[in-house]
Amino acid sequence: MRRGLNNFFRCLKKDGEARLGEVKTAHGSFRTPVFMPVGTQGTVKAMPPDDLEALGTQIILCNTYHLYLRPGTEVMEKVGGLHRFMHWPLPILTDSGGYQVFSLNALREITPEGVRFVSHLDGSLHFLTPQEVIRIQETLGSDIMMPLDECIGYPSTRGYTLSSMALTTKWAKESLDARSRLDRALFGIVQGGMYGDLRKEHAKELSQYPFDGFSIGGLSVGEPKGLMWEMLEATVPYLPEDRPRYMMGVGKPEDILEGIERGVDMFDCVIPTRNARNGMLYTSQGPVIIKNARYASDDGPLDPECTCYTCRNFSRAYLRHLFMSHEILSAYLNTLHNLHFYLSLTREARHAIDEGNFVVYKKQLIEKWNKGS
Amino acid sequence: MRRGLNNFFRCLKKDGEARLGEVKTAHGSFRTPVFMPVGTQGTVKAMPPDDLEALGTQIILCNTYHLYLRPGTEVMEKVGGLHRFMHWPLPILTDSGGYQVFSLNALREITPEGVRFVSHLDGSLHFLTPQEVIRIQETLGSDIMMPLDECIGYPSTRGYTLSSMALTTKWAKESLDARSRLDRALFGIVQGGMYGDLRKEHAKELSQYPFDGFSIGGLSVGEPKGLMWEMLEATVPYLPEDRPRYMMGVGKPEDILEGIERGVDMFDCVIPTRNARNGMLYTSQGPVIIKNARYASDDGPLDPECTCYTCRNFSRAYLRHLFMSHEILSAYLNTLHNLHFYLSLTREARHAIDEGNFVVYKKQLIEKWNKGS
Repeated sequence: MRRGLNNFFRCLKKDGEARLGEVKTAHGSFRTPVFMPVGTQGTVKAMPPDDLEALGTQIILCNTYHLYLRPGTEVMEKVGGLHRFMHWPLPILTDSGGYQVFSLNALREITPEGVRFVSHLDGSLHFLTPQEVIRIQETLGSDIMMPLDECIGYPSTRGYTLSSMALTTKWAKESLDARSRLDRALFGIVQGGMYGDLRKEHAKELSQYPFDGFSIGGLSVGEPKGLMWEMLEATVPYLPEDRPRYMMGVGKPEDILEGIERGVDMFDCVIPTRNARNGMLYTSQGPVIIKNARYASDDGPLDPECTCYTCRNFSRAYLRHLFMSHEILSAYLNTLHNLHFYLSLTREARHAIDEGNFVVYKKQLIEKWNKGS
Repeated sequence: MRRGLNNFFRCLKKDGEARLGEVKTAHGSFRTPVFMPVGTQGTVKAMPPDDLEALGTQIILCNTYHLYLRPGTEVMEKVGGLHRFMHWPLPILTDSGGYQVFSLNALREITPEGVRFVSHLDGSLHFLTPQEVIRIQETLGSDIMMPLDECIGYPSTRGYTLSSMALTTKWAKESLDARSRLDRALFGIVQGGMYGDLRKEHAKELSQYPFDGFSIGGLSVGEPKGLMWEMLEATVPYLPEDRPRYMMGVGKPEDILEGIERGVDMFDCVIPTRNARNGMLYTSQGPVIIKNARYASDDGPLDPECTCYTCRNFSRAYLRHLFMSHEILSAYLNTLHNLHFYLSLTREARHAIDEGNFVVYKKQLIEKWNKGS
């Protein structure tokens, strides 16, 4: 029955629950824990792909929902897939579009066969089935695909959570059947809302199927942070050791570290890129709000400990000036820096795990951030 | 009396009126004819300075008016000048701000001592004298400064043009007196509206003063193209052979060629950068409007003959997608390409002049553009 990929994931080392691993895809390998910059519309906002690669980005995430609506699968077929389209030679993970259907659309309807929704771009009506979502991702040429799932809100009743979970399971199984490219990975998405026993139940259930990895979905949807970690802890122990675990849409730098400590291998989040464009920059001394007047004539680098292009060549005064002047270069320099921060964070986390030193690494880093800010 | 720079300009070769030359500044030399990308607010929009340099940009233009208002001279003093601020190691030419005062401000008043105006940013009241304008540019650390002048509109009466010209001359002389840094160049700005005899008169008059070069101002302000060339031709013959000539704010690719043919050495214009952001791209086959639906699934490069990063790696379909999706990367890739086009154009023009082949070069290029579009 198993049709998943051979040798897709290898755990190289464990340090507590934290894992150093390697994932092999059709576009090369990447090391975990990994942070995946988000390229919603087929571009990590403001970043030329060569810069992204030079930063050490190993894999990016793109949004099936957005690319399905624009430029559409017909164009995507004609131009030979997403890698070629956006000139990105390394792995791409695509989400299923489920999250966007549920979060961007007031008008949507769920049936056992799929979801009906109205495009946020032009009001056109669409119906997506689990099968169609796989077909779209295969057309994109995604290396790691997600099945259509329902990402429920917080709070949700136990009853709704249970029936939604059953639907997500049904769609996940249909997605496995729908897959036609056997060189591309497909993950299962664990839901279960904020009910620890349902999380456990869903993790165990999905683990019976030949998914290449497991996503932990439905977290960071408005619940208290403590509850999120509780749910993660209720999930991870019931996922197979030999597959990667991906915590969807998380999070802040400290969240990445908390997730790694609890055995998560893959992360994606718009925070570094979106905050960059809003002028919130992560540094070794804690976050910097660059529009703050105190930086107006601050000739020093954004982060004296950082080695990125932005910090090596530009002052806080200049970054503030660009931000205040609404200059495009502001988005570029800020995004470059924040991604460098996230990618360094996970690179050093891998190193710490390899050294059996992750807990100390995490503690020292968070203390430093809190002290500086 | 002459206090200008020694060996500032050298004409290396003439081909008709077209000149191959070299200008030496405090931040290195550049070859003419040269196109100067415009960095209004201390950044060539969407371009990291390293990319700008890699493109072969020899000198950029920045706007005194904008930088005076934001971040202001106080900040600029503290951060050690514009080169350091924006991480640009090569020459910078600054305009005087006169053009912006007259074009961006409905509320402004001219007196013999200077101009009073209201900031377009915050409504604050300012008064700029020729002396202050030089002081600001010296604080910026400009390599080539412009004196305060009045750029009159089209049409203007002969009477108004005459009195305005006299004021521009007065200010130009005061600017020479105000200069304190003798390693920085100062140009005179020739006005004279659309009156050929006044152009000649003003060129001859300013040529008596020790300016390091001469700008031809007040053109491309709404007059017919033929009249613009007529005015240029009425000016250039009366400018000294041993100083560079700078045609301010011009122009389209064909205008650059026309200007070179008439003996102009330096050009600046927002067209390549602004049009890039608006999706109008210059190619060897003529302009491309990238949002055009015919490019939706066009997998070919923007310009098959172009060797820039954009054309080597991305398709028209992708460039269209980025533009339609309002992605920041659109501005970056488009600007990179258009600047590459302009910089190649002037690089090849220098080569053609060196070969004594400029007229043929120009004719073939324009024919090709017209044929393709």
